[in-house]
Amino acid sequence: MKFFEDVEVGETTRFGRYEVTREEIIEYARQFDPQPFHLDEEAARASMFGGLIASGWHTGAMFIRMVCDSMVPTAATSGSMGFDDLKWLKPVRPGDVLFVESVVREKIESRSRPDRGTVKIESRVSNQRGEVVMSLVSLVIYMRRA
Amino acid sequence: MKFFEDVEVGETTRFGRYEVTREEIIEYARQFDPQPFHLDEEAARASMFGGLIASGWHTGAMFIRMVCDSMVPTAATSGSMGFDDLKWLKPVRPGDVLFVESVVREKIESRSRPDRGTVKIESRVSNQRGEVVMSLVSLVIYMRRA
Repeated sequence: MKFFEDVEVGETTRFGRYEVTREEIIEYARQFDPQPFHLDEEAARASMFGGLIASGWHTGAMFIRMVCDSMVPTAATSGSMGFDDLKWLKPVRPGDVLFVESVVREKIESRSRPDRGTVKIESRVSNQRGEVVMSLVSLVIYMRRA
Repeated sequence: MKFFEDVEVGETTRFGRYEVTREEIIEYARQFDPQPFHLDEEAARASMFGGLIASGWHTGAMFIRMVCDSMVPTAATSGSMGFDDLKWLKPVRPGDVLFVESVVREKIESRSRPDRGTVKIESRVSNQRGEVVMSLVSLVIYMRRA
């Protein structure tokens, strides 16, 4: 397991593989983000996006799924406090295959809770053409070694 | 329809009603955020959260659903570029009923695209006890009147 002490500023990790399907884009949109360009192929073609695109919050969900599959099993994390500066940079479309690159930007020790610390991680989600589709800076809680 | 010209800095809106269920928390977690405290009642009780809590990304999904139901139908928006400073402040649990309060913080005219502008909106998602569970600052694209 990787604890707060084991995390190094500057550390870079590439992980994940998420195949984006039309069915999942529409299913997510129906449940949470029913805007025409996420929901309906015809309406999407007529929109500024020129075709169906995933909800940005759905892209965030794909990101956390890749984090859960690749990073969480070997990291002594205890969730996240939030994040800064999330940008949706490019549309995510059916057939895209996404991956993540993360860089540790900062480690912040907790004054009030000596058993943990916060790690600031900048992540970029990219598609199969290497285009960054989403970026964000997460504040992740890591436990210290006992 | 509400266009960029109609939005006023300082304008405050309260909207939405989202009933959080155990079933939806677990369903979302299975698909996107399979961490024990989102997925399994027993494991959640043993965690620092003391019981099942919704994925933070699921709370974001509930937020965008309330925005879609209440705000989008009467606003000439064309999606969002991202957001700043998202904070998960309190756990969201089964049985919670959420609502949103939004304040317009800033209007930014687009130099390159005179048909639209960006509106910076600070939103707080609260539960039935009035506790803020999530806050964020969204950058929303509004179209101008033709």
